[in-house]
Amino acid sequence: MTLINRPQLSLNCDMGESFGSWKMGDDERVIPYIDMANIACGFHASDPTIIHNTIALANQHDVEIGAHPSYPDLQGFGRRSMAMGGEEITNMLIYQIGALQALCRAQYTDINYIKPHGALYNDMMIDDGIFFSVVKAAAFFKLPLMILASQENEKYLEIADKFDVPLLFEAFADRLYQNDGKLTARSQSNALLSNEATILQQVQMLANSGKVKTISGQYIHLEADTICVHGDNEDAITLIQKIRDCLP
Amino acid sequence: MTLINRPQLSLNCDMGESFGSWKMGDDERVIPYIDMANIACGFHASDPTIIHNTIALANQHDVEIGAHPSYPDLQGFGRRSMAMGGEEITNMLIYQIGALQALCRAQYTDINYIKPHGALYNDMMIDDGIFFSVVKAAAFFKLPLMILASQENEKYLEIADKFDVPLLFEAFADRLYQNDGKLTARSQSNALLSNEATILQQVQMLANSGKVKTISGQYIHLEADTICVHGDNEDAITLIQKIRDCLP
Amino acid sequence: MTLINRPQLSLNCDMGESFGSWKMGDDERVIPYIDMANIACGFHASDPTIIHNTIALANQHDVEIGAHPSYPDLQGFGRRSMAMGGEEITNMLIYQIGALQALCRAQYTDINYIKPHGALYNDMMIDDGIFFSVVKAAAFFKLPLMILASQENEKYLEIADKFDVPLLFEAFADRLYQNDGKLTARSQSNALLSNEATILQQVQMLANSGKVKTISGQYIHLEADTICVHGDNEDAITLIQKIRDCLP
Amino acid sequence: MTLINRPQLSLNCDMGESFGSWKMGDDERVIPYIDMANIACGFHASDPTIIHNTIALANQHDVEIGAHPSYPDLQGFGRRSMAMGGEEITNMLIYQIGALQALCRAQYTDINYIKPHGALYNDMMIDDGIFFSVVKAAAFFKLPLMILASQENEKYLEIADKFDVPLLFEAFADRLYQNDGKLTARSQSNALLSNEATILQQVQMLANSGKVKTISGQYIHLEADTICVHGDNEDAITLIQKIRDCLP
Repeated sequence: MTLINRPQLSLNCDMGESFGSWKMGDDERVIPYIDMANIACGFHASDPTIIHNTIALANQHDVEIGAHPSYPDLQGFGRRSMAMGGEEITNMLIYQIGALQALCRAQYTDINYIKPHGALYNDMMIDDGIFFSVVKAAAFFKLPLMILASQENEKYLEIADKFDVPLLFEAFADRLYQNDGKLTARSQSNALLSNEATILQQVQMLANSGKVKTISGQYIHLEADTICVHGDNEDAITLIQKIRDCLP
Repeated sequence: MTLINRPQLSLNCDMGESFGSWKMGDDERVIPYIDMANIACGFHASDPTIIHNTIALANQHDVEIGAHPSYPDLQGFGRRSMAMGGEEITNMLIYQIGALQALCRAQYTDINYIKPHGALYNDMMIDDGIFFSVVKAAAFFKLPLMILASQENEKYLEIADKFDVPLLFEAFADRLYQNDGKLTARSQSNALLSNEATILQQVQMLANSGKVKTISGQYIHLEADTICVHGDNEDAITLIQKIRDCLP
Repeated sequence: MTLINRPQLSLNCDMGESFGSWKMGDDERVIPYIDMANIACGFHASDPTIIHNTIALANQHDVEIGAHPSYPDLQGFGRRSMAMGGEEITNMLIYQIGALQALCRAQYTDINYIKPHGALYNDMMIDDGIFFSVVKAAAFFKLPLMILASQENEKYLEIADKFDVPLLFEAFADRLYQNDGKLTARSQSNALLSNEATILQQVQMLANSGKVKTISGQYIHLEADTICVHGDNEDAITLIQKIRDCLP
Repeated sequence: MTLINRPQLSLNCDMGESFGSWKMGDDERVIPYIDMANIACGFHASDPTIIHNTIALANQHDVEIGAHPSYPDLQGFGRRSMAMGGEEITNMLIYQIGALQALCRAQYTDINYIKPHGALYNDMMIDDGIFFSVVKAAAFFKLPLMILASQENEKYLEIADKFDVPLLFEAFADRLYQNDGKLTARSQSNALLSNEATILQQVQMLANSGKVKTISGQYIHLEADTICVHGDNEDAITLIQKIRDCLP
């Protein structure tokens, strides 16, 4: 494996997903190890004061801020697809991102990128109409859009280019890849990599050679700008530190 | 009654207060007769697509757009006071106004002023801490704030001036005034003026001499920039036209 | 067309679909002409006081009460499918129907049947797992379940029988039927019958001979117990009266 | 301190206060040490499936089930007073308690008592109209109502008696009492007892002699049937065990 000269992979993590009196995640513990905070916008999680506090935390640690908008579904945490028209989706995204942006600017910072959450993220990757509606919202804000890295990066770039929307491609440290570069469905028992060494190896290979080892042992090319990590518990936070350490 | 040279009184009206499948008001019918549309921001009424359509309507009729934010209470239509901390209120307002502003800018227009809704409007007039929290949100957006005209205009101007927030004072065409310039409480049977001639007289006096006739027949001074009208039904819309016609 | 001896077809109508300050439908005008009121349970529309008032109205007109539960989606009026597990659906239905039942019993009446609303109704007709989850809730309450009449009535009866749940089959006065007894999709331009004479003919044929004329002009058998009507506006209410009049 | 013959004090605890993906409290750890579980009904916390699971847990540990209804305010966790009319409150309570009751009966158990939550609990103790509205809901279900023990127990008993509603009086293990038997407001720095020995002493005195030591060192009579405990964290759970152990 020849080490080639590649731009550094960043780590992004969902943040600010508490709601009212309910706490989720340990943002304070995770934030020192990440580069980009995807901040919930109040539709699947968070509320104005939690958003405000999460922005302050990101500021303090000099971490980039991403808008993390969602379908309107607190009870389902934005994980349920909801049939919405294309313009409805664009309006809903402008609403959420605009709200986050104002709260950012009130603290003299701003949004750096947009990453849809949960079911909306999945839907955008399989439905061109929804992807189009998301790109339109990103175009209005003149912000990059973070989507799933795959063998089809080119297809998405073509659509986004028409709106001058830069794309950020994200890969996953702990998900098993199919031969076509897609993620193994979570319904499969082997969807998640559980062995720490395997996870770190996947991160190193993505960082150093832009490749992943697939389910059949094949090595495929995967162009990614950032790796998504999760900080839900003690073990997860320790793993993030190790992932951080093994990045160049 | 000597006619003095006064700036023209504008007419403002709450708009965009439908929600999902539920319709409220007849915005299309009312908008030709008003100058300022107070657009609901999704917390007491409206949703992103209704907001989008209401902005389009305001644009089409060249009407000023005001943010009309509220406590978070769809079921209660923002008419119930909710105990919130000062910073919580400021964050909640920045969230709502930011969302509306982004949807405005997506249609190449912008917010012209802020008018809190319902219980938040009432609370702001009787609790200096809440007024202060509202002024802080207005200051961030560098937008004027619309509040209730009263004998105490000076008191509010003093606070707002510290934040460079201009105030717009609004009076009511169809409410009976007390001798101290306060509105007769809605719990009183005579709170609302029902006689059309009396209403039009109140508007003319406000417009021409900056005065109102109070409950005891006294004439008091009331400095107002704008008059609040409501377009809930056929009769209300006819009345707005007549109010419009009797303004200089 | 020989007139055979059939039990009378009832008319059912969705009711109590206002929410907070928003009004929907004209329940007071419609209720004299119907037999069964499908009362919203607070998840797609209504709130406890609207439910209370709608029960009072049904009581006053001696109309049967049906629980009309839904996916939790006020903004979408329960018209958007939401991915939920089977037990989740059963629990959600028991919650809503239990709430309505208590409010009925507080007025010395009770629920007579259950009719799922909107997307849940559609999903139940195409997904046996969801139908099963709905039947389980009906079984707990020992109440009949109202579903769409089709050529497949037997299939649903078989499942429901296992839980001792009686089924009520409903047909539509104003929808065009396919040859297989399914409704023409609303996405088709001819989905809705607009000619009054055609609608009344469809009702009479359903009532007298248990048949409908399909899109190709064929007559097919359709076993129905009740016809669904809507009372959204003046014309709709006039039509309901005519439908009422042409029933035996 | 002579030990007199008193009925045993029970321990009650708020349960089922998770919501969607958010977890709150450690119900599994707490439930072995308590007698009565106050189960949230979906308005300040919980959803139908969390309710179902909490009922199952209570069943398994043979713990009494209380309905724990609230104002409709998930974001504020039911801790904000909301202006509602008396009948509105009664309807809202019947809705929530009816929903919980149906989910109980689906597991062959039932509700044993009602304890309002948060702001509604506080409002009921200071506003006779609200207390009256709550009692009416309890009367419909023929269930006891749990309220705050104070020097005014008689006053509340008189109202409740008119509706044949039994009252359960609850005291607090870790709150400092005023000389008039009221709780020291949480806004005071000494509102909460933090010394474990003092807390256990308060519990023992309540259990053995029906008295508490007040802020001025006085001993006053306080008739209580149950003590409210909280299981939010490790220390809290250890404390509950010790409270349990020191009860007769």
